[in-house]
Amino acid sequence: METCYSIYAQIASIPVGYSNPSLLLAATSPEMASSLINRPALGNFPSHDWAEILETGILRVAPKGLNQVFTGTTGSDANELAYKAAFMWKRQQERGGASADFTTEEMSSAMNNQSPGSPALSILSFKSGFHGRLFGSLSTTRSKPIHKLDIPSFNWPQAPFPMLKYPLEAHHSENAAEEARCLAATEEIITTWPLPPAAIVVEPVQSEGGDNHASPAFFQGLRDLTRKHNILMIVDEVQTGVGATGQFWAHDHWNLSHPPDMVTFSKKAQAAGYYYGDAALRPNKPYRQFNTWMGDPARAILFRAIVEEIERLDLVRNTAAVGAYLYEGLQGLQRRFPREIENLRGQGQGLFIAWDSPRRDEVLKLLKTVGVNCGGSGERAVRLRPMLVFQRHHADMFLEALEKVIRS
Amino acid sequence: METCYSIYAQIASIPVGYSNPSLLLAATSPEMASSLINRPALGNFPSHDWAEILETGILRVAPKGLNQVFTGTTGSDANELAYKAAFMWKRQQERGGASADFTTEEMSSAMNNQSPGSPALSILSFKSGFHGRLFGSLSTTRSKPIHKLDIPSFNWPQAPFPMLKYPLEAHHSENAAEEARCLAATEEIITTWPLPPAAIVVEPVQSEGGDNHASPAFFQGLRDLTRKHNILMIVDEVQTGVGATGQFWAHDHWNLSHPPDMVTFSKKAQAAGYYYGDAALRPNKPYRQFNTWMGDPARAILFRAIVEEIERLDLVRNTAAVGAYLYEGLQGLQRRFPREIENLRGQGQGLFIAWDSPRRDEVLKLLKTVGVNCGGSGERAVRLRPMLVFQRHHADMFLEALEKVIRS
Repeated sequence: METCYSIYAQIASIPVGYSNPSLLLAATSPEMASSLINRPALGNFPSHDWAEILETGILRVAPKGLNQVFTGTTGSDANELAYKAAFMWKRQQERGGASADFTTEEMSSAMNNQSPGSPALSILSFKSGFHGRLFGSLSTTRSKPIHKLDIPSFNWPQAPFPMLKYPLEAHHSENAAEEARCLAATEEIITTWPLPPAAIVVEPVQSEGGDNHASPAFFQGLRDLTRKHNILMIVDEVQTGVGATGQFWAHDHWNLSHPPDMVTFSKKAQAAGYYYGDAALRPNKPYRQFNTWMGDPARAILFRAIVEEIERLDLVRNTAAVGAYLYEGLQGLQRRFPREIENLRGQGQGLFIAWDSPRRDEVLKLLKTVGVNCGGSGERAVRLRPMLVFQRHHADMFLEALEKVIRS
Repeated sequence: METCYSIYAQIASIPVGYSNPSLLLAATSPEMASSLINRPALGNFPSHDWAEILETGILRVAPKGLNQVFTGTTGSDANELAYKAAFMWKRQQERGGASADFTTEEMSSAMNNQSPGSPALSILSFKSGFHGRLFGSLSTTRSKPIHKLDIPSFNWPQAPFPMLKYPLEAHHSENAAEEARCLAATEEIITTWPLPPAAIVVEPVQSEGGDNHASPAFFQGLRDLTRKHNILMIVDEVQTGVGATGQFWAHDHWNLSHPPDMVTFSKKAQAAGYYYGDAALRPNKPYRQFNTWMGDPARAILFRAIVEEIERLDLVRNTAAVGAYLYEGLQGLQRRFPREIENLRGQGQGLFIAWDSPRRDEVLKLLKTVGVNCGGSGERAVRLRPMLVFQRHHADMFLEALEKVIRS
């Protein structure tokens, strides 16, 4: 058996390496044991240290401009909580503010799953996007039929996501036109869809859907559209967040004029939820946004340890540096084997690198025979999702293994 | 400060007492630490001991006739997973079996959230039922407007749930007529609703909705209807399961002619998911029923310890015995204060006892001043949800506190 390592990392969800000693310390602390065996119903009875656990962990890495968090349990759950917040915000505006009471008609129609209580609103997502597999989140997921077949969906709209040509430097004007086309189509849907969107949801890099990137200008364009039409922008950082792209949050690459309204997280955080910055997104009455557990203190304690480990080892800088090194190595392979590595992408995006392969599934299988567990996304992409502790010598090992597979 | 104890138990989710030493042992085991810091993506890379953890824990207490489990993270999630299984099962039948391929039209329409790929099917639930607050589960929840307002819903139907009169022995024929009326209405909806139900979902005792009970004959009637019309019966045991009613599963009280098709669990299990018995409910292709984590080994390890503790201390028998004792004490109070304790219910249902109070919120508040944290359900019910370790002397303390409040 040769070296066997994972650049898939439990579907991009292991942050700082298996059996990390700092995480082990957190996992074996009395605080952890208590949080496991005395799990509180956080909405009603938060433990005395819950605010501190949040402030020193989850909130310490809150995206710029967002200083509040609502905790959940998984990425799908985080997105659905954000969607619910968006719908409540939108209806509250239409109703005339936080102090306006629900009408009798709203209350009785909601109990029958009818409007106006169950509003005729939607969430706009993008073609090839993936946002989870619960009923609401699945209605925004557009990755593959196998994810959606036989499951009832809301009649929510999808806008096209830019399909960029690579290498980027050779297709500048074509790609700009493609992004402009997608923005125009997005605006068309926002203004005409029979169920008006309360929010758009977008991934910084479409991950399950094939590692599709877009430029900061595209995302700024989306931010402008949402502000123009008074709807919210939810950035789904379930897969991109927590350091993978060479920034703690992938949307930090965009330098938006205004921060997103909400940012969702899960996977590498090992906790889940959504950040927001506007007090108007805080439910105006108790029990509107609520469930029994509302997250998991055990996972929040672990996220705090993950954050500390990322800072201690300067891992965001590491993913940027090793990502650049790995990308360069892949560019070298691409020059030598242009038919095997097409549309190499993710430059400047840390370790969030992918390319298309004409024989993707075979390549993934062969990589396993030389000790590398690697994943795919979309129809033909090979996606790299190493842990944040991935180093130059790991990149060298991977490049060597990949060359061996390509030559075979 | 007088004695302060909880018969609410973190919304019915603490099983065997705070800081239980046996659970502490499990929570501080090396196995637990590893499951926390090396959380696997169970669908792709289950840990070597995952099957054993399930067999010695979650599956050891599987309801009669159900020998398979799909693990999730919360009660809402468990229900949505069960709904998805029901939709896939129904469409698979309509398509002609597990080997029938999806059509091109199904695949393309699913990607657009349209039928036939997104089928025009529903889940039938009951008035006052509660099944969670994600988008699909919320469409089956009918407890209170505050749970549903401003959140888009599927146009799924609700059938009436029997509103029984108490004491049961004085209203036998009225209650039988009420249950017959509800069964007839259920059948009417099954056969006429524009989105045909793939399944019904029902709680053994409607919990959030006001602690509404029905007779075993009613549930047998539902089982007969579902078999007659070839749809599935999902029993939501999120709140009733794991020993609270004097049986491990509340539906054990019914002696059904055929077991339910699926049983969902969470809360006291501290893990979540659904049991099923029919291989036809197993997805026929990989990645149909799937997500990154597919449950949580840490919580499954804890559930195993909970099961062992329940067996070691014979806690299901305890809830039956102490429940009977507590019910008798409440009957005594009811005789003396008939205006304060109305519609006492839950006889023979272990500790799952409730009554209606004309001044419910005041009673709950006053109970806190004498050291008792107790919860409500529905509009005017006081519901008792003690832990399984609740004993006779706790019942005495509670009865004494309640009398003090009633007299005040």
